[in-house]
Amino acid sequence: MAKEKKMVEAITSMEEDFAQWYTDVVKKAELCDYASVKGCMVIKPDGYALWENIQNELDKRFKETGVKNVYMPLFIPESLLQKEKDHVEGFAPEVAWVTHGGLEPLQERLCVRPTSETLFCDFYAGDIHSYRDLPKVYNQWCSVVRWEKTTRPFLRSREFLWQEGHTAHATAEEAEERTIQMLKLYADFCEDFLAIPVVRGQKTDKEKFAGAEATYTIEALMHDGKALQSGTSHNFGDGFAKAFGIQYSDKDNQLKYVHQTSWGMTTRMIGAIIMVHGDNEGLVLPPKVAPTQVVIVPIRQNLEGVMEKTLEVKDMLSNFRVKVDDSDKSPGWKFSESEMRGIPVRVELGPKDIEAGQAVLVRRDTHEKITVAIDEIPAKVGELLETIQHDMFERAKAHRDAHTYDAHSLEEMKDIADNKPGFIRAMWCGCQECEDKLKEEVGVTSRCMPFKQEKLADTCVYCGKPATKMVYWGKAY
Amino acid sequence: MAKEKKMVEAITSMEEDFAQWYTDVVKKAELCDYASVKGCMVIKPDGYALWENIQNELDKRFKETGVKNVYMPLFIPESLLQKEKDHVEGFAPEVAWVTHGGLEPLQERLCVRPTSETLFCDFYAGDIHSYRDLPKVYNQWCSVVRWEKTTRPFLRSREFLWQEGHTAHATAEEAEERTIQMLKLYADFCEDFLAIPVVRGQKTDKEKFAGAEATYTIEALMHDGKALQSGTSHNFGDGFAKAFGIQYSDKDNQLKYVHQTSWGMTTRMIGAIIMVHGDNEGLVLPPKVAPTQVVIVPIRQNLEGVMEKTLEVKDMLSNFRVKVDDSDKSPGWKFSESEMRGIPVRVELGPKDIEAGQAVLVRRDTHEKITVAIDEIPAKVGELLETIQHDMFERAKAHRDAHTYDAHSLEEMKDIADNKPGFIRAMWCGCQECEDKLKEEVGVTSRCMPFKQEKLADTCVYCGKPATKMVYWGKAY
Repeated sequence: MAKEKKMVEAITSMEEDFAQWYTDVVKKAELCDYASVKGCMVIKPDGYALWENIQNELDKRFKETGVKNVYMPLFIPESLLQKEKDHVEGFAPEVAWVTHGGLEPLQERLCVRPTSETLFCDFYAGDIHSYRDLPKVYNQWCSVVRWEKTTRPFLRSREFLWQEGHTAHATAEEAEERTIQMLKLYADFCEDFLAIPVVRGQKTDKEKFAGAEATYTIEALMHDGKALQSGTSHNFGDGFAKAFGIQYSDKDNQLKYVHQTSWGMTTRMIGAIIMVHGDNEGLVLPPKVAPTQVVIVPIRQNLEGVMEKTLEVKDMLSNFRVKVDDSDKSPGWKFSESEMRGIPVRVELGPKDIEAGQAVLVRRDTHEKITVAIDEIPAKVGELLETIQHDMFERAKAHRDAHTYDAHSLEEMKDIADNKPGFIRAMWCGCQECEDKLKEEVGVTSRCMPFKQEKLADTCVYCGKPATKMVYWGKAY
Repeated sequence: MAKEKKMVEAITSMEEDFAQWYTDVVKKAELCDYASVKGCMVIKPDGYALWENIQNELDKRFKETGVKNVYMPLFIPESLLQKEKDHVEGFAPEVAWVTHGGLEPLQERLCVRPTSETLFCDFYAGDIHSYRDLPKVYNQWCSVVRWEKTTRPFLRSREFLWQEGHTAHATAEEAEERTIQMLKLYADFCEDFLAIPVVRGQKTDKEKFAGAEATYTIEALMHDGKALQSGTSHNFGDGFAKAFGIQYSDKDNQLKYVHQTSWGMTTRMIGAIIMVHGDNEGLVLPPKVAPTQVVIVPIRQNLEGVMEKTLEVKDMLSNFRVKVDDSDKSPGWKFSESEMRGIPVRVELGPKDIEAGQAVLVRRDTHEKITVAIDEIPAKVGELLETIQHDMFERAKAHRDAHTYDAHSLEEMKDIADNKPGFIRAMWCGCQECEDKLKEEVGVTSRCMPFKQEKLADTCVYCGKPATKMVYWGKAY
């Protein structure tokens, strides 16, 4: 009983302490656990099932655009990591180093991949010869390691799971097209599948990926008004190609450098799902990504006929991901548990319901109760799941829009940053100095220069010089 | 053109040099490539697609038995690895050690997981409290690292991909049942899906897993007469539970140790597919695991109507994994390429065929050509794929049976080992000394004590003392 009790003990309310609320949900919805290696995590079945659903859907969408999966080694020799100057500067301070294999010291240190640009480049240098070998549109699913100082489950951990796509193209145009295509794919995935609205845009030079010419990003707003970078897509131009000597002979028999891209999405999206949709009862899962979409809770399950009817209803729902909770816990416990786990629809079925030929459906997102005839359960559940998915997106979008503020002056920006958590839209001159100052004085970073630009003012919110871009600023995870 | 040429250059014949034939197939069928880290490999799209098919099918079969996927950290602290004495002795000599995180030395060395028993045990010790928490039937898909001295693509590499299942049970009986269940699942998978017949049995104490009470194995015979251990399932009893303190309070309120199992299958199965089914034209893939089941090769594709009909036939075959080779290579190149890649069925379609309303189907496994009416292609292809899958298994089984020999004396055993590559069945007294001597003098290791025992003689083939078991012996990868 100790375990059950923990499940339904109230969690910290998000208004009181959002960080503690997050940790409570992660633990009590049994998504992950701490591991004996500091900063690493054990992803438990319900957490991993979320990742599997993310993975399956993304993988399907990737393959529809011609992506092929491959697998590169876990280790990168130090000399290989150092081939691209900006890249090594960006990553060397946070990699884990292997120095011994078996009982012997290695001749050259190997780093555990923090990302695999250098490995893909090394491979492409040997594998690409002619224009006929292009494009290469490869992806891998794997874990990567970054030796972070402060860590939080899913959001920032020393090891995390992700996919990393790495492509090589004949022309700069084609590379740019692929970069944008993948960012759009990520954005659509987040909005359609995870019900998380995102702002699409470009990172400033300061915030772009180490070694990239341009980094595009999708930025989501969490319930506490902080931003979460949710997926990035990088155009490398021919920088890596020159560093690694990746050339092809074109139709005109000229040797040319390829143009490359990379793009990734990680297990931090599980953190995003929690922080965008969760409430004070726990997790709230969008139906499309929910490992269990419907839980059926029989009431007085030992009475004759109750379990029979429960299993009958389960069979009627075979088009959905459905579970029966026939444990010997009380219905009250089971309700709380299903809410903590974020299961979108609960079906309550007791002897009186059965007698009346009906059941009660409960929406996780709104707690709304709907009584329906047993025959109509499958149709109603299908409809409800669609409605919930739709409403969750709309709710998240309304929240995001209500927490997006325009700042026309530095004073106004400081006031918003101090008092109204959310995105701040403000004009910028384009120089890094202003960006640094805004971080120092206002405590915000540039999240992105959105594709959808608006002219809020003529001048930079910091320096007053002519503005070149409207930027989304914010505090971020 | 350089690339195409390489594709259809003859590969080394397997009769001449089996090891070189294997390497040639791996390279020319583009399954994998060497990486800049010695002993590691780049798994290319066609190799990885094989692994994805293996993974999807195994994962489906696992889940049908109640398995849940999780993810454990990549790193194991040295102190954790040392908790189970036999286990650390077995693995410590071949692990890679991380000694630095970022710019600083670690306080405790971390090994890159060679297998994750210790991590699962550490997790279970904190997660299992009551009989209600049992059984735990968890699995993970990941890569592991073993610092091998000599390596070969897929068969033995310093990093490989696998799944590792780790379960905890209330009773010894239940653990033994799960161990056997998973071995049976592996055996069925190999035979049904990969068309590879296997011998099911138990490892001797000498060959069992470090820390296990009993290891069960499936052993396959490669075309060259060498054995390949293809999947293992271990019963740990309560040894790890005692070392890690994994206890639960039972219904009678007594604290008891759990009983554990683990089981794994790896990317070496890709090596098995190559070495069981391949021939001197290259790879031969069983239809169920083949990434592409049917390739359509249009002949004189620039003539009017040929590509139209080709695409029409492709649409008719949408129930299968089908590709059209419309590259500008000659039909001859395309035929060789499809053979090298092991695609089970080739459809040849030229202007004369189209005029006659027919096409030619070619079986990869037998090279048999069958002319069929275009309308009948889908039905015939479906039938052919089933026949090929069936025939490939029967052929492999006939080969295995024809290369399984009984030895009644040491002399006979030496003669077989020297002259007839294959499995050698012989009686054994059960002591490790004889096993060591057979390795030394005959050059064979015990592959398994098969579940299906036969009494070939009363005495041990080596020492002449009373025999306790019939054993499969052989040279092995």
